[in-house]
Amino acid sequence: METIQIITKRKDEFVDITKDVSKILNQAGIDSGICIIYCTHTTAGLTINENADPSVKKDIINYLNKAIPEGEGYSHIEGNSDSHIKASIFGSSLNVIVEGGRLVLGTWQGIYFCEFDGPRSREVCVKIIKG
Amino acid sequence: METIQIITKRKDEFVDITKDVSKILNQAGIDSGICIIYCTHTTAGLTINENADPSVKKDIINYLNKAIPEGEGYSHIEGNSDSHIKASIFGSSLNVIVEGGRLVLGTWQGIYFCEFDGPRSREVCVKIIKG
Amino acid sequence: METIQIITKRKDEFVDITKDVSKILNQAGIDSGICIIYCTHTTAGLTINENADPSVKKDIINYLNKAIPEGEGYSHIEGNSDSHIKASIFGSSLNVIVEGGRLVLGTWQGIYFCEFDGPRSREVCVKIIKG
Repeated sequence: METIQIITKRKDEFVDITKDVSKILNQAGIDSGICIIYCTHTTAGLTINENADPSVKKDIINYLNKAIPEGEGYSHIEGNSDSHIKASIFGSSLNVIVEGGRLVLGTWQGIYFCEFDGPRSREVCVKIIKG
Repeated sequence: METIQIITKRKDEFVDITKDVSKILNQAGIDSGICIIYCTHTTAGLTINENADPSVKKDIINYLNKAIPEGEGYSHIEGNSDSHIKASIFGSSLNVIVEGGRLVLGTWQGIYFCEFDGPRSREVCVKIIKG
Repeated sequence: METIQIITKRKDEFVDITKDVSKILNQAGIDSGICIIYCTHTTAGLTINENADPSVKKDIINYLNKAIPEGEGYSHIEGNSDSHIKASIFGSSLNVIVEGGRLVLGTWQGIYFCEFDGPRSREVCVKIIKG
């Protein structure tokens, strides 16, 4: 297992970690299998989405903030229940298939760490299983 | 890794691919492990849900279209940000456990490709890991 | 593959199964790999979220019930389409990385079975892949 360190700068932010994950795969030298990407935080998540037009990330974040408003009548004392809800909806892990020593991603797919309660110092774990 | 080709006919459509995935598993002849199903697109996703009453699919699609409206003030120039949002909420991969050479699905569970920006020609990747 | 039996008491309820999954891992005696947790139901799901303040679970459940109302104009004859929608949004499987014979969970992370149509008798499958 390897880890990727991430420092986020805003409350809501999608950080492209595709190159970091690819680098870990290259170093592992595994030709065929699966790559598991895991977020150890409860107010952040992971997603795979468009890697070309950055306005897609912006539209997703704006939608989430409208659909899951911050600080509206939550009982959790820290007041960040909106971030926990987003984390559960996006999920804490991703699978990507490995073939020919590369991540099998679509042309327009990038791997994103999704900060929902930043700015913070965060960590993502990556594990590659041969098979 | 094997691929399943899908041609969708509507903007929003859930296509049952359970038989296609089972066929790939049968051909692989793997008795125990996990099956990873992966969608290489950013405006489509995957889910496991009811395989009996087709009105469940209809209710899910109707709900999504109400909760995530098409073309409402998105900044992405292609205008299909609603499809990208749905893709991130549903996710791009599924895991199903393999035991006794079969997919461990519940009685009422089917595996669905979820088109959110059709009609289009699509592809789903399937990888089986022995273990 | 091992199974965890769960009896839920309310329509919507998050049941902490972290200890059950850890116990299965300990009995398997696998040092490194991944752990797949799978829900065989179509009106329930799984999530990883806060294990400390129980009000987080309450806030997530309240949010879902507000965003996805029960019995509002669904066509599915059983009338529980809200539960099916929640199941697809949360997802039916989780991955957790295994290192040093332990689940790699963040400090505040617990593994939850999410009942969306209880009370019912439920089952969760756990499979550990060495690697």
